[in-house]
Amino acid sequence: MQEKIIQLLKDCRGYLSGEDISRRLKISRAGIWKHMQELRHIGYDIEAMPHRGYRLVSPPDRLLPREIKYGLGTKILGRDIIYHELTQSTMDDAFSSGAQGAEEGTVIIAESQSKGRGRMGRSWISPKGKGIYMSVILRPQLSPNDFAKLTLLAAVAVCEALRKVSDLDIGIKWPNDLLAGGRKLAGILTELNAEVDQMKFVVVGLGVNINASKRALPGEATSLKIESGKSHSRVAVVQEILRSLEYWYADIERQGFEHVLKRWRELALILGKRIIIKEHHQEIHGEAVDLADDGGLIIRTDSGETIKRLSGDVVQAG
Amino acid sequence: MQEKIIQLLKDCRGYLSGEDISRRLKISRAGIWKHMQELRHIGYDIEAMPHRGYRLVSPPDRLLPREIKYGLGTKILGRDIIYHELTQSTMDDAFSSGAQGAEEGTVIIAESQSKGRGRMGRSWISPKGKGIYMSVILRPQLSPNDFAKLTLLAAVAVCEALRKVSDLDIGIKWPNDLLAGGRKLAGILTELNAEVDQMKFVVVGLGVNINASKRALPGEATSLKIESGKSHSRVAVVQEILRSLEYWYADIERQGFEHVLKRWRELALILGKRIIIKEHHQEIHGEAVDLADDGGLIIRTDSGETIKRLSGDVVQAG
Repeated sequence: MQEKIIQLLKDCRGYLSGEDISRRLKISRAGIWKHMQELRHIGYDIEAMPHRGYRLVSPPDRLLPREIKYGLGTKILGRDIIYHELTQSTMDDAFSSGAQGAEEGTVIIAESQSKGRGRMGRSWISPKGKGIYMSVILRPQLSPNDFAKLTLLAAVAVCEALRKVSDLDIGIKWPNDLLAGGRKLAGILTELNAEVDQMKFVVVGLGVNINASKRALPGEATSLKIESGKSHSRVAVVQEILRSLEYWYADIERQGFEHVLKRWRELALILGKRIIIKEHHQEIHGEAVDLADDGGLIIRTDSGETIKRLSGDVVQAG
Repeated sequence: MQEKIIQLLKDCRGYLSGEDISRRLKISRAGIWKHMQELRHIGYDIEAMPHRGYRLVSPPDRLLPREIKYGLGTKILGRDIIYHELTQSTMDDAFSSGAQGAEEGTVIIAESQSKGRGRMGRSWISPKGKGIYMSVILRPQLSPNDFAKLTLLAAVAVCEALRKVSDLDIGIKWPNDLLAGGRKLAGILTELNAEVDQMKFVVVGLGVNINASKRALPGEATSLKIESGKSHSRVAVVQEILRSLEYWYADIERQGFEHVLKRWRELALILGKRIIIKEHHQEIHGEAVDLADDGGLIIRTDSGETIKRLSGDVVQAG
């Protein structure tokens, strides 16, 4: 019923009388009043004006599934959205949902994570209510060898979405970070479950710093608010990310990864640059030359060799 | 306490008096009698002879963890063994244990499976008490791109173990079946959980037909008993498989996959043979030429192309 009341208030974009609501939803005036109180409690700012009725001033600053779904317009991504105020890690939640058969497009989203994780078991700082911490389950009909490319696809899709909502010049730091002004704005993590023949499911996870202040973030990080000077609706950003991810994901059925790799090259911050890759106990110095067809980075090392890496820690050398 | 009684009976390899047992384990004669009854109930055949004492005639024909662990001699594989009379699928159990952090070497084993699965979602017939239905959790420090090779390693290791216990001429049908006398003796299934950078865990699952009769198996299948004309101790076969798997797994730390691929080529039934690979809506006709370094099969097609496949359905053409 609350869903329906919110829907009505959003659709009318102005005042709606208690009488109208009562007639359309077939509930009593007292019932409406009770629901309004509960919606306010969740964080909806609802004005009540004598003789005019109710008006939705603003939705709560929360990533509620009904808010994300309203006007989303995707077909697959976000069909099912699981919301947590706080969870350990949306990656872990999504992985276990995926293993239990959750359908493609299922989204796990949280206001905060107590054990948010980045690549290779590192942690991801998740200030409450200031970012997007989200994992999406995909079930691609692909070979596990396409996994690296799927990770690049996620980077392209999220980068495009963030550029669109912010007009900032955001680029991709290989393999899976998005930078704005040289600082880390978002991290993308992909996790695979596969047989030798085919992928069973992939979880695309992301952490995006939206409205966090410098104080709340690690030193090398930034947020959309810091870079653009204004706050952003996290719900709107989530919607744009889901739309973009769905667009690029559908694109591989149309033309394989060609388009993705092409756009990745354009958005990449390191191609043609001198880099250092840190591996276990050594550093590789060289130049990032190109992206291979399998999604690996081709590096011309200072010792003259041409090598390829599917992933690694890159430091831009200058 | 039952573990300890069995241990004593096994170690002495003959009669052990109630007085001896009572003294060593500090329990009453009545207590011993009660435990003996319970052990018989589980399936241990224990003889009781006046004036001589108890003797273990034979353990039950069940894959009990204590039986598998006795004399196993591995360091990692089988440290933890989870036993089921019946489960849906040891693959599913192992995968969910792995996702929850089960340690490397954990084994899930069952007397029967109600939804045993093979490659690509196919089913695996699991006659109760007549075969080995087992999944092992590994946590290799490898790139996900080594996954196909790890699957070959599992095939080599299980093939070697079955050859050793049976003296049969067992070979590998690419990618993951073991054949004896041209019929399917065992199937191997591997499942991966990985990030782009590294594997998180791999489940190696296998179904081996041990003492099943022709009647209990699908038409294209055979069992160790059918081929060798005699029954085999399933516990002994499990132990040999775990030892072999541990040996070959440790081998990749010593010399990478070189040794595995070499042995695979020797055991492979299709190299040099004409084959048909069935893919989605087409068939590829050609000759299986060699194994690539990444574990893929190199095929020279009848149209003159040289192609590579990491997996697929192979029919030997003659």
